[in-house]
Amino acid sequence: MPVAGQLQTVNHLRNFATPVPTVEKEYAFEVAASNLRFGDGVTAEVGMDLKNMKARKVGVLTDPNVAQLKPMKATLAALQAETDLPFEVYDQVVAEPTEESWRTAITWARHHDFSHFLAYGLPSIGLPSFINYPKSSVGGGSVIDTAKAANLFTVYKDADLMDFINAPIGKGLPITKTLRPLIAIPTTAGTGSETTGTAILDITSRSFKTGIANRALKPALGIVDTHNTESCPKAVQISAGLDVLFHSMESYTAIPYTERIPRPANPILRPAYQGSNPVADIFSLWALRTTVENLPRIEKNPDDGEARRQMLLASSFAGIGFGNAGVHLCHGMSYPISGLNKKGPKYKHPGYITDLPIIPHGISVALTGPAVFQFTAPSSPERHREALAIFNGTTISDPSITRIPDRELGAHLYESIARFLDGLGVPRGLKAVGYSAGDVEKLVEGTLPQRRVLDLAPGIGDVVGADGREYLTKIMENSLEY
Amino acid sequence: MPVAGQLQTVNHLRNFATPVPTVEKEYAFEVAASNLRFGDGVTAEVGMDLKNMKARKVGVLTDPNVAQLKPMKATLAALQAETDLPFEVYDQVVAEPTEESWRTAITWARHHDFSHFLAYGLPSIGLPSFINYPKSSVGGGSVIDTAKAANLFTVYKDADLMDFINAPIGKGLPITKTLRPLIAIPTTAGTGSETTGTAILDITSRSFKTGIANRALKPALGIVDTHNTESCPKAVQISAGLDVLFHSMESYTAIPYTERIPRPANPILRPAYQGSNPVADIFSLWALRTTVENLPRIEKNPDDGEARRQMLLASSFAGIGFGNAGVHLCHGMSYPISGLNKKGPKYKHPGYITDLPIIPHGISVALTGPAVFQFTAPSSPERHREALAIFNGTTISDPSITRIPDRELGAHLYESIARFLDGLGVPRGLKAVGYSAGDVEKLVEGTLPQRRVLDLAPGIGDVVGADGREYLTKIMENSLEY
Repeated sequence: MPVAGQLQTVNHLRNFATPVPTVEKEYAFEVAASNLRFGDGVTAEVGMDLKNMKARKVGVLTDPNVAQLKPMKATLAALQAETDLPFEVYDQVVAEPTEESWRTAITWARHHDFSHFLAYGLPSIGLPSFINYPKSSVGGGSVIDTAKAANLFTVYKDADLMDFINAPIGKGLPITKTLRPLIAIPTTAGTGSETTGTAILDITSRSFKTGIANRALKPALGIVDTHNTESCPKAVQISAGLDVLFHSMESYTAIPYTERIPRPANPILRPAYQGSNPVADIFSLWALRTTVENLPRIEKNPDDGEARRQMLLASSFAGIGFGNAGVHLCHGMSYPISGLNKKGPKYKHPGYITDLPIIPHGISVALTGPAVFQFTAPSSPERHREALAIFNGTTISDPSITRIPDRELGAHLYESIARFLDGLGVPRGLKAVGYSAGDVEKLVEGTLPQRRVLDLAPGIGDVVGADGREYLTKIMENSLEY
Repeated sequence: MPVAGQLQTVNHLRNFATPVPTVEKEYAFEVAASNLRFGDGVTAEVGMDLKNMKARKVGVLTDPNVAQLKPMKATLAALQAETDLPFEVYDQVVAEPTEESWRTAITWARHHDFSHFLAYGLPSIGLPSFINYPKSSVGGGSVIDTAKAANLFTVYKDADLMDFINAPIGKGLPITKTLRPLIAIPTTAGTGSETTGTAILDITSRSFKTGIANRALKPALGIVDTHNTESCPKAVQISAGLDVLFHSMESYTAIPYTERIPRPANPILRPAYQGSNPVADIFSLWALRTTVENLPRIEKNPDDGEARRQMLLASSFAGIGFGNAGVHLCHGMSYPISGLNKKGPKYKHPGYITDLPIIPHGISVALTGPAVFQFTAPSSPERHREALAIFNGTTISDPSITRIPDRELGAHLYESIARFLDGLGVPRGLKAVGYSAGDVEKLVEGTLPQRRVLDLAPGIGDVVGADGREYLTKIMENSLEY
């Protein structure tokens, strides 16, 4: 079994008789702050916020469709009037950002040396409901993530993109400078990017996604406003909601922070993705329960305002959960699943108005969901039992749940998750989006470099020397169809 | 019924026929960030943190006993060695800080113009268990609160103390400048001051407590370390734990944020104490459950490490809850109860090693607990039902809870809270600490200026024009004995 560099060293040291340097496990965890404001229509306060923050010059990031829309122009005018502040708009953010699209945004931001940033992927702001959601709109995550990168590389004005990308793909250098304040306004209930220090991009040359995960990238304020998801199409709401579902499932079942190795020598080296911990647990469980209750309501009626409000809350809460605990297998495997699709199956998900192949992020995460939690169930039976109770709409003390022996929990959870996904119209496995058994090896190869998340997977991250190839292969195979 | 100034205006305006200026209710709520680190022994990282934060000169606040202790000296030496940074120690923080003690600390801090602060009320740090907790030790809250004040008035170097004290007692001015980073290390599981923007002091001339509540005061980092409550005496642990209990009960039952008036014209005017909201609810309920389970364990065995760990978590979580929602009646009434004791009953709580009269903060809060929640129960029956289930060690769906009609919830909750407090050795009402029926009027007079918290009390804060005098009188009378 091939072994990743760092882990091999650890393993190797254990072969010496004496003295064996102790690889200490983690003993502490951190909760990093997220400033959030929730309210229907609260986006209107953003001009005052920037003024209160004494912004000198604001960099507004948005997408190409937004700039053409009258309401957006009016909003920007209002912003200008209210703040009496110079701002510049960058409207070239693309869905599923790449190294190339990040570099373009960074060049723009460096040129302007903004004091503040506003991520404003707001195709629906102020739009009357009869106007359709713009074609191939970007949604919240892509804009917010691009703004985080623009901010980081404005402060580190000579750094290379790869300097901060997660190791081993990039150098994963620590961020010690303070970034400029970023206000993030999500327009989908999905990524939770307004609460996290995570920014994801597509490494096109390698056909997978990775990114930067560092507390320093966290927005200064997230403005969470139900009005901003009003005209989001159903397919986008469902896919985004699946991201919330698996953020919460994965962070709740990640290895405990006390199992993460090594203990950092300096607190600044403690990663944002720490493993499950008591604070993240509270958020993750709440988000899981709320998503299981509300996402099916959106499937029935995408205009259900209360369900949309709850999903936005769940999205932010799951963000706080996984932002401090991490995600693992579903996310790690999703990156090659969506990346290889462009050259491979060229699947185009129904409801997405685009000419390009797309397995939306939430769908790519969900495809392996049933098999992943069947695999992880033995690592923490009580947590998986809790999740099973939530999917089955009951409590952990209900006899229908208590009577299931630990060893059968995985199979039950597989069934319950599959049934839940099926109810939302998610393709029934990798074959349903065009992959075949022959693609499994490539998909596993694309997952293996995602150490940042694999290291948090129970059965992989907590086993010294394990890279997980054989488990990943089995999970991919079990995800082909169901 | 006398009417407070601002509310009278509102009421008065309603008497005009047309046009009636609308006093809009709140429509949004904020969650302010708290950076926390949890771990047994994690205090050792604080030197590296200050170095990572590029501190130029650190102001360390502590209490008189600590400076004399060898382990404290060793800790400070370690801090110096590790950070290679100048620091100054102020060891004159007093328990239950006053205007006078704040002024002395502020003068010291202004003189040094520190770049960073460390609140370090750590009588027990590194102490072997055979050393007794120092006489009249200060505990976490007093030191952290004093450090917040020292920080604020270092940045506002010409401001008067009363400029920022809550209105109407002080001017309650907004804080628009950024304060210096403060690291807060709690040594009791009580105030949650490491997570909040609240600092409380005793206005000795008026025999009650008040303070400053503003997000700007929030510590940059809270370091929550079970080692630091190791030698805390049982009486202090119990009193501190009662503070946690009522932080969570009061913030969970405060008026909903949507009932608070008026809606602020600028987001910077939105108070930290916003009323109950979905984020604070999650933290408050968790803290309530955890305290009800673990505080009786501490009463049985103050060395129960797991119970102490859970209480520290609960203390921080309740801090996040009430820090974003607020407290109300128990806290509002506690200030004159403990303040008037010094001239009046001169009660000295057992287990506190001091020559001065003292009703510890947690005890003064608990004395009115049964009567308060009997009063508030009709305002939100489901929330009070949930609390009752927690006190009764069952779930809200248990028949013993569901069979209680809404109108009887208050009486049941009164009984359950009284039984819980009795089990912890709390004096059974105001008479048990030396007050009599003749003191009720004075106690109510001392409560009425606490608008900051009374405005969040259901039945008082959500009724235009109400100051609550008659209700407060009834609650005080019902708290005389039980």
